[in-house]
Amino acid sequence: MSTHTISPARFDAGALQQAVDGVIEEFLAQKAQAADSHMAHLVGLLAEFGAGGKRIRPLLAVTGWQAASGLPADESVVRVAASLEMFHSFALIHDDVMDDSDTRRGHPTIHRTLANHQRDSRAERFGRSGAILLGDLALTWSDEILFTAGLTPAQLGTVLPLVTEMRTEVMRGQYLDLRATGELHDDVDATLDVIRYKTAKYTIERPLHIGAALAGAGDDVMAACTAYALPLGEAFQLRDDLLGVYGNEQDTGKSRLDDLREGKNTTLVALALRASDGAQSALLHTLIGDPFLDESGAEEVRAVFEATGAREAVERMIDDRYWEALRALDTAPFTAEATTTLKYLARKATRRNS
Amino acid sequence: MSTHTISPARFDAGALQQAVDGVIEEFLAQKAQAADSHMAHLVGLLAEFGAGGKRIRPLLAVTGWQAASGLPADESVVRVAASLEMFHSFALIHDDVMDDSDTRRGHPTIHRTLANHQRDSRAERFGRSGAILLGDLALTWSDEILFTAGLTPAQLGTVLPLVTEMRTEVMRGQYLDLRATGELHDDVDATLDVIRYKTAKYTIERPLHIGAALAGAGDDVMAACTAYALPLGEAFQLRDDLLGVYGNEQDTGKSRLDDLREGKNTTLVALALRASDGAQSALLHTLIGDPFLDESGAEEVRAVFEATGAREAVERMIDDRYWEALRALDTAPFTAEATTTLKYLARKATRRNS
Repeated sequence: MSTHTISPARFDAGALQQAVDGVIEEFLAQKAQAADSHMAHLVGLLAEFGAGGKRIRPLLAVTGWQAASGLPADESVVRVAASLEMFHSFALIHDDVMDDSDTRRGHPTIHRTLANHQRDSRAERFGRSGAILLGDLALTWSDEILFTAGLTPAQLGTVLPLVTEMRTEVMRGQYLDLRATGELHDDVDATLDVIRYKTAKYTIERPLHIGAALAGAGDDVMAACTAYALPLGEAFQLRDDLLGVYGNEQDTGKSRLDDLREGKNTTLVALALRASDGAQSALLHTLIGDPFLDESGAEEVRAVFEATGAREAVERMIDDRYWEALRALDTAPFTAEATTTLKYLARKATRRNS
Repeated sequence: MSTHTISPARFDAGALQQAVDGVIEEFLAQKAQAADSHMAHLVGLLAEFGAGGKRIRPLLAVTGWQAASGLPADESVVRVAASLEMFHSFALIHDDVMDDSDTRRGHPTIHRTLANHQRDSRAERFGRSGAILLGDLALTWSDEILFTAGLTPAQLGTVLPLVTEMRTEVMRGQYLDLRATGELHDDVDATLDVIRYKTAKYTIERPLHIGAALAGAGDDVMAACTAYALPLGEAFQLRDDLLGVYGNEQDTGKSRLDDLREGKNTTLVALALRASDGAQSALLHTLIGDPFLDESGAEEVRAVFEATGAREAVERMIDDRYWEALRALDTAPFTAEATTTLKYLARKATRRNS
């Protein structure tokens, strides 16, 4: 077990990533071995897909554990962290089907890859169905990694409700996002409500909670996790929204036309609509949601984001929330090492280009 | 708890159905109460969808419990049974998206219902995405019902691996089914392999195992469950295949053109291909998988199923497997009451018209 132990003394994201990847690789290798050739192909796709992730949720789960316990993360904690990453693969695979995205992490999405294996009129449907099933498998296997983590009954009793809560929250956020897509509006608060569920709770708060709960954390630690996580999670998604429109595709691994073509009503869009004049508003309504939008059309949209001050406003919102998260750490009952790590992660989550 | 207790003395499917429905209704009512209006709408759809089920898996789980323990099924056993039914809602909702089916249980499928709420060009995609998410929620909530069933650590330790195994198996079966769809072949054994995973293990064997495992059953009981379940499960699916082509739509609640239009390579189709002459084979290859197949085309296909003896052969296979399941009960170490119930269920599963 010692190979999977992560020391709390000095934060080492690389070592954690290696440990999490080790759990997932070993798990999927066993699944592939037990599978027929068709299933082995699916398992292989899942392994490749997962290899490209940033591992932010596992990092936070381990940090939550360390914040509350001050102890090294042993095999069981690393397995719980790995199960969050497997769940995230599920979420992304289904998200890409729902958004009909072509690329993810610099590669074709799972449904595109599967469709490319078939050369007939059923290819698109086969790709979509196979991706739905592979997502379902990833969700099931996320459970399996969790159930076989060697948790005590007390740990299971506190962690399982948090896990189902996290899953319900992110699905709720996804559904709100889906409902809001294609009908532009300037209700900034509504966009922040989507963000809270889709990202802030899912990506930051619940992973921290789950790690802290493994250590038997009390209400004060859990509340401090929330006080740090919600503003940071909003900032993380606001950065994502900016990268979705302004990012370098080489860095992000995703098209910077997708969000606009799909008509995502991000906070950026809502702010621009709120501050736009008649002509600007008409332009946004015409171009955002146009499935054939090209780069020159996207440039026109970006120009409105600048002219209305919306881009700048989002940058300010990110900054405000970054500092709010840091202030929450000042009074948090966490270990000093975990606090240092959380400061580092806050910076990384908000000042990134990928 | 007494209202949810099911006596083993006399099998009462109605009482069990009521108890399972009670658990699910109460659970979903709580979810609806905690939800905003959009989510409450989704929860309502799930409640309506689940109300139309046959509850065969919950019945088998409770019977597995009674076979091994001889005790009344208490609240925790009923909740585990209910979690299987919630999982089944997930499986059907995603299955309908993958098959692009219009009707299920006599009503529009979830993705059609959701699409009908939107009146623009995005309606179809919205319906599909919403159904994927609602399926994901049902899977997550199936977990939640299971986790809150009040199981002992020992029960959780035996049941959770069976649950993840069952889920992996049915997804594997679905994927094999998907791969086999649209490319007709006469490999009868391959069709039976799909059936084993997609239906026999999922619908009969694993629910029995899960119920028996709750009672701490040993290897002999588990093996006897398998000996009964696999032949019966194959017979169940073979009956389903016949109903998919010959059933009365008023009874089955599904179109009897869907399987043919979709090009499902059922055992019936494989047997017909194997026994067909050149003209018959050409007709099957032309009509099966034609998305615009109408009732008169379907009649031509049915005529070939009769002429080649394929329909009759499937009826014989159902009968053989029915008797094999009954013979397995002769030596099974089950309680007498459970054996009586399993005989009744075997008859019902193979001699049904819906």
